[in-house]
Amino acid sequence: MPTDEQEIRQLVATWMTASKAGDVETVLALMSDDVVFLVPGRPAMNKADFAAASKAQSGQDAPQIDGTSEIQELQILGDWAFIQTKLTVVVTPPNGAPPVTRAGQTLTILRKQNGKWVLARDANLLAPVPQ
Amino acid sequence: MPTDEQEIRQLVATWMTASKAGDVETVLALMSDDVVFLVPGRPAMNKADFAAASKAQSGQDAPQIDGTSEIQELQILGDWAFIQTKLTVVVTPPNGAPPVTRAGQTLTILRKQNGKWVLARDANLLAPVPQ
Repeated sequence: MPTDEQEIRQLVATWMTASKAGDVETVLALMSDDVVFLVPGRPAMNKADFAAASKAQSGQDAPQIDGTSEIQELQILGDWAFIQTKLTVVVTPPNGAPPVTRAGQTLTILRKQNGKWVLARDANLLAPVPQ
Repeated sequence: MPTDEQEIRQLVATWMTASKAGDVETVLALMSDDVVFLVPGRPAMNKADFAAASKAQSGQDAPQIDGTSEIQELQILGDWAFIQTKLTVVVTPPNGAPPVTRAGQTLTILRKQNGKWVLARDANLLAPVPQ
């Protein structure tokens, strides 16, 4: 049996792999139905908003997404947990435009539901990195 | 005896009042020693960084700080808790320059230490509001 920490680390790894592959359904299965995504300067996004934004970015004209994620803190609080990660995401448009790199930290709250850890609240503090 | 929820709501109210008054010591007493502040596009701040930044902004040349905070979600997880707030901060420089308004959301993790709730991790997603 993997520990809670191992399961959460696996969730983060699966999230990154599925995001890079444009596998929206796998990413959606890693979050709770009441998930909230917070980003600077924009309204909060719920699961339907996230799905719509991800699907708009998939398909033939999808940008290429690459990135790295490093967990800097992981705390288990019973059936809840939180992680701080250092994240770098490189988005390369399909039209030959130069790639855009965003980097920064995330503070994420996770929840164990029916024995499975899922992402529940996510604050994304990434900012563009000057080229 | 106030409930945990009442104590956390009081902490947020005291934080706002003390920040407006430039009362740095009171604000510092509302956070854990291992507190982490995350903001977009800048490195994480610890308690000493927060104290230095706050003290640099206090005194005769202190800007006037005003703002409102609305708790949108509050979850108690045993001796930990998290809140989502909607926050607006208006900073008016002392030199007659126009005020700067920043608005957005925060995701904050709190911890009960020695029977007292304190702020432990804070993701601040505020962005400038165009005038």
